[in-house]
Amino acid sequence: MTRLRGDISISLDGFVAGPNPSLEEPLGEGGDLLHEWALSAESWRESHGLAGGDKNADSEVIKESIVTTGAVVMGRRMFSGGEGAWENDARARGWWGDDPPFHVPVFVLTHHPRETLVMQGGTTFTYVTEGIEAAVDAARSTAGDKDVLVAGGASVVQQCLKAGLLDELQIHIAPVLLGNGTSLFDRLGIEPLALEATRVLASPTVTHLRFRVPGRTA
Amino acid sequence: MTRLRGDISISLDGFVAGPNPSLEEPLGEGGDLLHEWALSAESWRESHGLAGGDKNADSEVIKESIVTTGAVVMGRRMFSGGEGAWENDARARGWWGDDPPFHVPVFVLTHHPRETLVMQGGTTFTYVTEGIEAAVDAARSTAGDKDVLVAGGASVVQQCLKAGLLDELQIHIAPVLLGNGTSLFDRLGIEPLALEATRVLASPTVTHLRFRVPGRTA
Repeated sequence: MTRLRGDISISLDGFVAGPNPSLEEPLGEGGDLLHEWALSAESWRESHGLAGGDKNADSEVIKESIVTTGAVVMGRRMFSGGEGAWENDARARGWWGDDPPFHVPVFVLTHHPRETLVMQGGTTFTYVTEGIEAAVDAARSTAGDKDVLVAGGASVVQQCLKAGLLDELQIHIAPVLLGNGTSLFDRLGIEPLALEATRVLASPTVTHLRFRVPGRTA
Repeated sequence: MTRLRGDISISLDGFVAGPNPSLEEPLGEGGDLLHEWALSAESWRESHGLAGGDKNADSEVIKESIVTTGAVVMGRRMFSGGEGAWENDARARGWWGDDPPFHVPVFVLTHHPRETLVMQGGTTFTYVTEGIEAAVDAARSTAGDKDVLVAGGASVVQQCLKAGLLDELQIHIAPVLLGNGTSLFDRLGIEPLALEATRVLASPTVTHLRFRVPGRTA
């Protein structure tokens, strides 16, 4: 059974990006600090076409996600950045390079219909204009018996939670206070929802918390 | 050297209390879910004059805080609840009962000067009107070689972080999304601040994250 998994890094104060994101600093001020734990991991580097890296527990957590992911859902800003991206030819094919690190079909939530982009290395970008449920359905239909990964940003994770679509949520907490930025959960406005903690793994640079979201397939 | 320690339970979405707190539900809707992990712990029960309880890792975490705490700083709402508390005779002595669970001097941040209250069991409530630094200084002067605990609420923890006063911050993350409420960190507006993760402990009902805040005594 294909599960829908959210998987995202946040600061201790709950931000997925710092304030004032720009082309130079797409994750905002301090936002790079959220992902330092991943950048040195062998499995992250391999997915990005880079050699070397650390073979540690953090790398295993990333690898586990990679090998179980059959399709990805992401927001339009995660695909190509902030304002003006669609009018910018350099970003019309996203900002993930010619060989993006996903290597599976990616479904991009957008208001603008476009032709599917076929990239190198197995990544395709398909644009979905009918909302989060349609994007998840499309992703499920290509994932086989693997999972659908909700990669971000915060708004897409929030939409999945509000719609009761998520089966699992993995949060990587970086030991930093960003002070401001894009809040992962913000104020969801949902009734209190008890999750089931299924795993906690910690390294000096990050704590991985994994939860089953009730009411969905395990 | 007396350290200033913050120690507080939050939801996964970062709230220390749910929405719409009231006399009947002082922690707001769903807020009790943040503290379930503590209520069954032997050390928590003992500090509240109750017998029994679980001798587990969660209980050890609470006990560790109790035995190292020489004085407490808290906000006025934590002392006696929300609006109208000062005009309400029943809450003029706080809402912690005749034998409050602190058993050390407590310094309450308020705008209204009042006489110190001497309670049973070693708790005193002293009112500080000159701001967070004065409250911390007063607490330090009575803590001996033990620590000063910032018990909450969120606003007091935020004031300590903004003023660079905290030495250590321990967060207990309950596996629940509250959806709304009082945010622990909110948007602090500080520059990105890297912390040092010093311990992660997990049980099925809570994850304890402890951090050293840089620039202060270890």
